[in-house]
Amino acid sequence: MSAYFSKRNLQFLLHEVFHAEDLTKYPYFSAHDRGTFDMAIDSATHIADTLMHPYVREVDRNQPELKNGQVTVHPKVKEYIRAMGEAGLIGAGFSFEKGGQQLPELINSCIGLITMAANNGMMYVGLTSGAANLITSFGSGELIDAYVPNMLSGEWQGTMALTEPQAGSSLSDVMTSATPQPDGTYKIKGQKVFISAGDHDAASNIIHLMLARIDGAPKGTKGISLFVVPKYRSQTDGSADTWTVNNDVTSTGVYHKMGQRGVPAMHLTMGERDDCVGYLLGEPHQGLPYMFQMMNEARIGVGMTAAGIATAAYHAALQYARERPQSRRLNEKNALDAPQTPIINHPDVRRMLLFQKAVTEGSVSLLLEAARLFDIAHAADGEEKENAHLLVEILMPMAKTYPSEMGVQSVSQSVQTFGGYGFTEDFPVEQLYRDIRITPIYEGTTGIQAQDLLGRKMTMKGGKAAQLLMQEIGKTIAEAAAHDELKPYAGMLKTELGQIQEVFQALMPHAGAGDYERYLSDATLFLEQMGIVVVAWQWLKQGIVAKQAMLTQNPQGDELAFYEGKVHTMKFFFHYEVPKTLGLAARLKDPEVLTIVSAKELAL
Amino acid sequence: MSAYFSKRNLQFLLHEVFHAEDLTKYPYFSAHDRGTFDMAIDSATHIADTLMHPYVREVDRNQPELKNGQVTVHPKVKEYIRAMGEAGLIGAGFSFEKGGQQLPELINSCIGLITMAANNGMMYVGLTSGAANLITSFGSGELIDAYVPNMLSGEWQGTMALTEPQAGSSLSDVMTSATPQPDGTYKIKGQKVFISAGDHDAASNIIHLMLARIDGAPKGTKGISLFVVPKYRSQTDGSADTWTVNNDVTSTGVYHKMGQRGVPAMHLTMGERDDCVGYLLGEPHQGLPYMFQMMNEARIGVGMTAAGIATAAYHAALQYARERPQSRRLNEKNALDAPQTPIINHPDVRRMLLFQKAVTEGSVSLLLEAARLFDIAHAADGEEKENAHLLVEILMPMAKTYPSEMGVQSVSQSVQTFGGYGFTEDFPVEQLYRDIRITPIYEGTTGIQAQDLLGRKMTMKGGKAAQLLMQEIGKTIAEAAAHDELKPYAGMLKTELGQIQEVFQALMPHAGAGDYERYLSDATLFLEQMGIVVVAWQWLKQGIVAKQAMLTQNPQGDELAFYEGKVHTMKFFFHYEVPKTLGLAARLKDPEVLTIVSAKELAL
Repeated sequence: MSAYFSKRNLQFLLHEVFHAEDLTKYPYFSAHDRGTFDMAIDSATHIADTLMHPYVREVDRNQPELKNGQVTVHPKVKEYIRAMGEAGLIGAGFSFEKGGQQLPELINSCIGLITMAANNGMMYVGLTSGAANLITSFGSGELIDAYVPNMLSGEWQGTMALTEPQAGSSLSDVMTSATPQPDGTYKIKGQKVFISAGDHDAASNIIHLMLARIDGAPKGTKGISLFVVPKYRSQTDGSADTWTVNNDVTSTGVYHKMGQRGVPAMHLTMGERDDCVGYLLGEPHQGLPYMFQMMNEARIGVGMTAAGIATAAYHAALQYARERPQSRRLNEKNALDAPQTPIINHPDVRRMLLFQKAVTEGSVSLLLEAARLFDIAHAADGEEKENAHLLVEILMPMAKTYPSEMGVQSVSQSVQTFGGYGFTEDFPVEQLYRDIRITPIYEGTTGIQAQDLLGRKMTMKGGKAAQLLMQEIGKTIAEAAAHDELKPYAGMLKTELGQIQEVFQALMPHAGAGDYERYLSDATLFLEQMGIVVVAWQWLKQGIVAKQAMLTQNPQGDELAFYEGKVHTMKFFFHYEVPKTLGLAARLKDPEVLTIVSAKELAL
Repeated sequence: MSAYFSKRNLQFLLHEVFHAEDLTKYPYFSAHDRGTFDMAIDSATHIADTLMHPYVREVDRNQPELKNGQVTVHPKVKEYIRAMGEAGLIGAGFSFEKGGQQLPELINSCIGLITMAANNGMMYVGLTSGAANLITSFGSGELIDAYVPNMLSGEWQGTMALTEPQAGSSLSDVMTSATPQPDGTYKIKGQKVFISAGDHDAASNIIHLMLARIDGAPKGTKGISLFVVPKYRSQTDGSADTWTVNNDVTSTGVYHKMGQRGVPAMHLTMGERDDCVGYLLGEPHQGLPYMFQMMNEARIGVGMTAAGIATAAYHAALQYARERPQSRRLNEKNALDAPQTPIINHPDVRRMLLFQKAVTEGSVSLLLEAARLFDIAHAADGEEKENAHLLVEILMPMAKTYPSEMGVQSVSQSVQTFGGYGFTEDFPVEQLYRDIRITPIYEGTTGIQAQDLLGRKMTMKGGKAAQLLMQEIGKTIAEAAAHDELKPYAGMLKTELGQIQEVFQALMPHAGAGDYERYLSDATLFLEQMGIVVVAWQWLKQGIVAKQAMLTQNPQGDELAFYEGKVHTMKFFFHYEVPKTLGLAARLKDPEVLTIVSAKELAL
């Protein structure tokens, strides 16, 4: 089997850069140590190796079909979900009390990386996890007992049912209705689209966490509630063997997609027979705040899916470039008797590979940083907790978007590395190229993330989140400045922070004047610039650790090459990727307005 | 039927910007006028509308299969090829004498745009045209009579058979052998891969223009000859009804591809029974120079294919953005009673659409510029001819690469405009996203084009081609400077020329020192920078014409909106795309070397 991720890199990030074990100093994680962390990761790797990666093409070539109201998926899906359940990995992040392993999100994210690199078409258990998490966080004991155990064991599938045909990203316009019944339940009526794993035969029940509007609720996002809507309901909830009543959730259609074909995206219709029962989760009208409390994990999940796909593509391209001889080196063009050289020796190919390595390992580092802060926000107290939370909040738009948008570019360069072969089904990269394209759309499109960053996160708590982020980056800069070889890069990153500041100051007056349309018109470019800066920060962090290891541990052979590769790729990122901010900053400071519609429609 | 290209834009470029009719002043084109030009375009549009566009999904969903040695393609392929033949469009660019219409490449390119926007999976006749052109240019009268008429009528398919499994882009390493026979023919033995339209049942014969090495020929590119190798040969060549002898060209495999599925890419084996006869075209060992004389048209063709695909995607996204209501404008976020606004009114969506318009219409303009110069190089005399030829040569790497690379980005933004729907087979953009990804690989990958630009074209004839290009751009700058509204853009373009100069001067010493590996190591970035600059030039040209039309013709309604849209999109290109050169130039002038392999292998 070919490598689809680097275990060494993951260990480096986890233990050398982020010191995973430090989390065990918090009481919440104190039952763990490096051994239990590594065990969970090994267990996921085993499942990925045996039940996921071998079927990566099959699940793509045999996409789910809807026949007679039933969605059939690849038989291995069931095996993998059950194995994840048995290994305790669906509930890895849940508290012991809730039947979980109480593992940090940092470890959970590594599991996400490995499984999504192995086979992102088997994207099922993260959805169940997220849905079960909502129930345990906001549901009554009754709801928890009725649903969560079967979800964490992998017997039942969970979903997030937000999107509606007429609303898309605009959750204000959710129209699915919930009519109160005398017994305290609600009758649900409406339609949902793009519900991942929204129906399939690998689970004996599907539990939808669904946004709907209680009759008479306020308009907009303030009138949205969250419901548990099962595919099959129980006559007497809680008795495990009576979950046989069809709950009037109809599979109206399954989307045929360009990629991620292993997991069905469903169009669902609720209440066609006026018999779809929903169970209110928590308080009425709190649906969106509840959902958003889970959003950070979901977004780390999408980022990791993207990073996983791009990682798998990079490793395929790297192997190909090492093995494929073609042409001679440019300074030996005329040595026609010489054998052809492996293409990895051509600077242009090497540039493409370094780009892929810089993007994918930078993305994973950023996501693990976010996950680690998420854990601290959960496990710490007082100011430490609050600061970690603010850092998670401000990092999230980049942590979701950079891996997705740049992952698309990275996989494109993987395809290019293969030349014509990359376009064929003989190699895995064409599939990965199709798969990853959904990630800039999932869980808030790039445009939505950009509005979140500039419109909310940059100014939240009087700009405190942004200040904290600058401070954290400043610490890394100070540390790097102590190494001669890293000093220039510390200086470059400092310049970048100044440039961000300038851009932000150029934009702020529009927000001050209440002109949010103008303030946010190029928010996507600001997000792109911030993404480059925080990934540069992650590379500088990695560079420091690698440099330190070379100074103190006298590594040899593969180990030395690993650390040298890290420092080299850090340099690559600063010399090839960081300069892209020049153009972004120039545009963002440019006063010319060209994208705001005037009264008169332009002929596009 | 939804629009897949803008006829108004094509007329604008053809007649208002490039003054197509001016070509008729040359004797070679003197039989034509605007009427005959428009007739050919209308004729192609009719075929595109009726025989191509309606089958765009079908040819994708039913990809060619190889069964019992026979490749079957969609039945409409045959109809469309024959219709193109009957309309005289396969031989549109051939001289009257050779059975063609003697139309300029400028018109031929428009036909390429329309047909490839309609259905790029029906990419057949351009290949036949190119192959027939080689035969008429370098073949004996006998070969021409035997092959060309059936090719131009669409009865026979032509191919370009260059690539081999062990060689890829490295034509020096072509190994297919040609053994001289007593009758003056050659026995061919070898393998070719990725031969587009290399076998199918819509043509009664397949005529391969094949590179092979005559026994004992010199190594490298200097020992490559060009052969005509038919699928079926005649016992007595030239007698049309005896083309029944199987010529031992075996279809070994058909590639399953990510996109452009309508046209089979073949793996062919010649001489399994030692009975594959090849007919030498022209002189021995001249194969590569011959092939390269046709390369410019082939590369314009690939550029137009990319531009066509991106154009179709842009028009789909534009229509969707006008019709799809979602959310409210940013300054009216809380007006929940107001209806949702069409997404085209959101600045971020408008930015994505303007990007697509800027890239696609800029690409088409650049390609038509190259085609027009190609025509002048063909039809003019003396210095005018020579200068036009040099301009074609230097423009070609950008004319092939910009539409391909930026087209990939553009279609990605088309997908993003559709949100989740863009990822589904319910809309055309997912297919176009898959289709266009081959274009940066076809006919010389982006890396190869970059080496061609920096390694050959920039320095050819002592830099004369580059000087001529700068002069041409300078003329446009001078013209633009006369309009107050365009003056700033003239200034920006001038700055860009200076920046190119600086970069080139920073790189030149490496070439001077004979270190081509260093000189060319970031050639792809130089190509990217030059691409942006020449497309900015094209936009400035369009801006001048639009401005002039508004000043002198008092246009109203749709016409006024069209011209305003042109000036607006020109501004968009300068404010959003041109700043990208800042980062590219910074990197290109940066002395840090990171992609040249040293003795020690880095751990990637």
